[in-house]
Amino acid sequence: MPRWKFKLHEVIYEADTPAGRFFDIAILVVIIISVALVMMESVSELLMKYAWQFYIAEWIITAIFTIEYILRIIAINKPKRYIFSFYGIVDLLSTLPSYIGFIFGGANLLFAIRALRLLRIFRVLKITRYLGESRKLMLALRKSQAKILVFLFAVLIICIIAGTLMHLIEGPGSGFDNIPLSIYWCIVTLTTVGFGDIAPVTPLGRLIASVIMITGYGIIAVPTGIVSAEFSKTSEKALNNTQVCPYCNEKEHLNDAEYCHNCGNKLNE
Amino acid sequence: MPRWKFKLHEVIYEADTPAGRFFDIAILVVIIISVALVMMESVSELLMKYAWQFYIAEWIITAIFTIEYILRIIAINKPKRYIFSFYGIVDLLSTLPSYIGFIFGGANLLFAIRALRLLRIFRVLKITRYLGESRKLMLALRKSQAKILVFLFAVLIICIIAGTLMHLIEGPGSGFDNIPLSIYWCIVTLTTVGFGDIAPVTPLGRLIASVIMITGYGIIAVPTGIVSAEFSKTSEKALNNTQVCPYCNEKEHLNDAEYCHNCGNKLNE
Amino acid sequence: MPRWKFKLHEVIYEADTPAGRFFDIAILVVIIISVALVMMESVSELLMKYAWQFYIAEWIITAIFTIEYILRIIAINKPKRYIFSFYGIVDLLSTLPSYIGFIFGGANLLFAIRALRLLRIFRVLKITRYLGESRKLMLALRKSQAKILVFLFAVLIICIIAGTLMHLIEGPGSGFDNIPLSIYWCIVTLTTVGFGDIAPVTPLGRLIASVIMITGYGIIAVPTGIVSAEFSKTSEKALNNTQVCPYCNEKEHLNDAEYCHNCGNKLNE
Amino acid sequence: MPRWKFKLHEVIYEADTPAGRFFDIAILVVIIISVALVMMESVSELLMKYAWQFYIAEWIITAIFTIEYILRIIAINKPKRYIFSFYGIVDLLSTLPSYIGFIFGGANLLFAIRALRLLRIFRVLKITRYLGESRKLMLALRKSQAKILVFLFAVLIICIIAGTLMHLIEGPGSGFDNIPLSIYWCIVTLTTVGFGDIAPVTPLGRLIASVIMITGYGIIAVPTGIVSAEFSKTSEKALNNTQVCPYCNEKEHLNDAEYCHNCGNKLNE
Repeated sequence: MPRWKFKLHEVIYEADTPAGRFFDIAILVVIIISVALVMMESVSELLMKYAWQFYIAEWIITAIFTIEYILRIIAINKPKRYIFSFYGIVDLLSTLPSYIGFIFGGANLLFAIRALRLLRIFRVLKITRYLGESRKLMLALRKSQAKILVFLFAVLIICIIAGTLMHLIEGPGSGFDNIPLSIYWCIVTLTTVGFGDIAPVTPLGRLIASVIMITGYGIIAVPTGIVSAEFSKTSEKALNNTQVCPYCNEKEHLNDAEYCHNCGNKLNE
Repeated sequence: MPRWKFKLHEVIYEADTPAGRFFDIAILVVIIISVALVMMESVSELLMKYAWQFYIAEWIITAIFTIEYILRIIAINKPKRYIFSFYGIVDLLSTLPSYIGFIFGGANLLFAIRALRLLRIFRVLKITRYLGESRKLMLALRKSQAKILVFLFAVLIICIIAGTLMHLIEGPGSGFDNIPLSIYWCIVTLTTVGFGDIAPVTPLGRLIASVIMITGYGIIAVPTGIVSAEFSKTSEKALNNTQVCPYCNEKEHLNDAEYCHNCGNKLNE
Repeated sequence: MPRWKFKLHEVIYEADTPAGRFFDIAILVVIIISVALVMMESVSELLMKYAWQFYIAEWIITAIFTIEYILRIIAINKPKRYIFSFYGIVDLLSTLPSYIGFIFGGANLLFAIRALRLLRIFRVLKITRYLGESRKLMLALRKSQAKILVFLFAVLIICIIAGTLMHLIEGPGSGFDNIPLSIYWCIVTLTTVGFGDIAPVTPLGRLIASVIMITGYGIIAVPTGIVSAEFSKTSEKALNNTQVCPYCNEKEHLNDAEYCHNCGNKLNE
Repeated sequence: MPRWKFKLHEVIYEADTPAGRFFDIAILVVIIISVALVMMESVSELLMKYAWQFYIAEWIITAIFTIEYILRIIAINKPKRYIFSFYGIVDLLSTLPSYIGFIFGGANLLFAIRALRLLRIFRVLKITRYLGESRKLMLALRKSQAKILVFLFAVLIICIIAGTLMHLIEGPGSGFDNIPLSIYWCIVTLTTVGFGDIAPVTPLGRLIASVIMITGYGIIAVPTGIVSAEFSKTSEKALNNTQVCPYCNEKEHLNDAEYCHNCGNKLNE
């Protein structure tokens, strides 16, 4: 590996050197600009007024992304590992649309594929992953993942049963046309969103809606309780010391432990 | 009890053997398909287009459920214990509709009773009950049940009083036609759902609505606080054993401790 | 105080004897029936259909409440203490309406004053106060009361500033006619109720609305955090032992304390 | 610094003397009245009816604020420090509008600048800052600030991706006209506000909306968990001191402990 390649790798793939950090932030800014452009292009008034400017900005960003993509392939020893990685595919998908649009044309389709560029936003997440706070958050969330999934599964079953019930009671008259729609309404209600495009009109339907709402209001406590307990544990440190028994390698000790609770030998001699 | 019956019992009622686990999962899949079918049949466009396919799928599922029901009766020593259990009745109720529909006809009524098949979804819950996470969730919920019921009771009383007040202030003009309806609106508002089909229009009504909303926003903390505290306790249980060191009387030990962390002597001899 | 009066006092004012508990529950049932009656009377269709039955039920309940009121005055040694207590006034206010209505007539006014009977529902709260769970809830709420009030005050200030801003941006065109109305909308939005009767239509208004919503979604954590911490403390008991230093009367000791942390003497000799 | 100036400073800038506290409360009352006036003036019916009274009240308050502003400049040794402080600028901005309005006229603009007076409300916050509860709240919030910002950033990215998706699926037909609008809708939905002015109508759009709602319902647990854990820590601080017994090295002591609870020796000699 030649020295320039090693340097390039350090700048592009790492963030420990000033140059590496500058590269990361520069790419971040370009991504945010490109995302903002896609958003603004979707506003038809803006698109009509500034069609020409959008066109140029489009190609500048495509050029930057293309150069970045090529540099990333050059800078790595085994390019295949990058090309077929998640971020490699995202980078390619967010660069191609402009070229495809240029070759095949077609304004509507063009826009849909250009929105793929938004996938780049995941790279922002990748950078923020370096932040300690975000790592703690992810840890607490991952630990409570299983419990939250079981909870959401229970919520779904409640919605299926309540949705069917509402469909039978309210009927197609007041918007509860079929069971999937009624389940959709149940989710809207249980999560306390409440759009109001569909709302019960019969007394019995309203009674059941009340029960669903109070249920939703009550069980919102469950995911909160799960995550709270997890955060408390993470921050509590009652067991977060680095004592390791020199005899049996047991790692979990109370903070004031003097003897290993597993083999009975002294911990710190 | 003959050997084949013992084997059958093991497969159908238990989930420790590979065969038993396979049977459970297979039934689970059939239940989910049957639930999806009931849902899709309720969409009138789909029902018209695929009437014939629905009819066949209906009878296949009915056949599977009938066979399962018969097998469950055969496989158990005291069939009555199964037949009159909660799941026995649910199984029967979810099998009968198709037969009743076949004999008596009547499309609308037919659908309503076919929805009974959704009750089968409880069997899914029964299976998930094996998951440790779900058991912990239920435990924490059951422990905080009494507190949550008292809380919901207080919420109901607030809604009754506030509903009556809103009915007197807003009157029938803006949708608060009678007290039950006003109470329904109060529940919609306090639980922060807010459909918007009924909304206050007088200044005084809006002032009281604001108070209700802020109350709802504030007291949502109560069930959450209850469940959080319960979860914290449950997860702190790692230290909640009754082991006491017979030598130094130290009481705080990790659940899997074998030696006292204070004096190094064996805990349970 | 004669013996019959003593007995009567025990039945009416206390709940330790079977007779006393029966009296409490009986009154509770009558209150719930009377509340249900007031609710149903407000539904004009029901009132027209069952006018005669409502009239009779009305007078039966009035009679029961009148007898109870007289008994309560007789059974107590110092009647004034009851008559001018909160529950004494509520009892009188919930008995009078029927008599007033009988003497002066006037259907509309009649109903409004009859709704005063709902105040009786507070007596239900009084009975539930005996429940231990409810007592714990009230304790945790009372302890976090000051923090929650400060929080709600901050919420109100946010709503006043954001409401004024929205009024200036959106203007009377889209429903933000004046500042109080805009503040009402802010409260509806911040508490995540979201009726939808008023909604921003300008891009800037929607941007600020987004900020308000995310603020509301984020700061709902504050009251929850307050109450959760309070519940955890109440249930934690890390300091909830009953050790009292025999030398200096200090009451707060760690659970594993052997010497008083205040005077240095041994705790349990 | 002459004696009268010292006294004036004590009254105006401090709140330890009865006079100082009275001055603070008096200004607080005037601010609340002026805020209420601005609110009421925005209601056009009230403005038309009481135009004359509003005009007088306006000038009385302006006079009080002007006098207060002059006194504050006189009472301080280095007036520049007050004039260019946050509250100095707020005080000036909330006094000027009436004078500007008097000189230049223009009813509509006049109102907009008069609303600047609402900035005075921050002074109320300054006074409440003396309250211990509010200080604890701010402390817990500031500590969890970083985590909450990371969380809100993640929420924003979810909304950008989901909003683009909804725009592509629902299209301009049902209100999802452009990406910024769709993102606005996503924020409305994820925060469980749910106005209902825009709502999905296609089955796929409703499916994704359901996922967004359940996500919002589930992740509301995250900020709550963060703040709860912080509050718990803050209230657990009773044990978070760095006292170590010089005799037995015991580290866990109550904050006001003077003797070691483990060996009974004095802690800080």
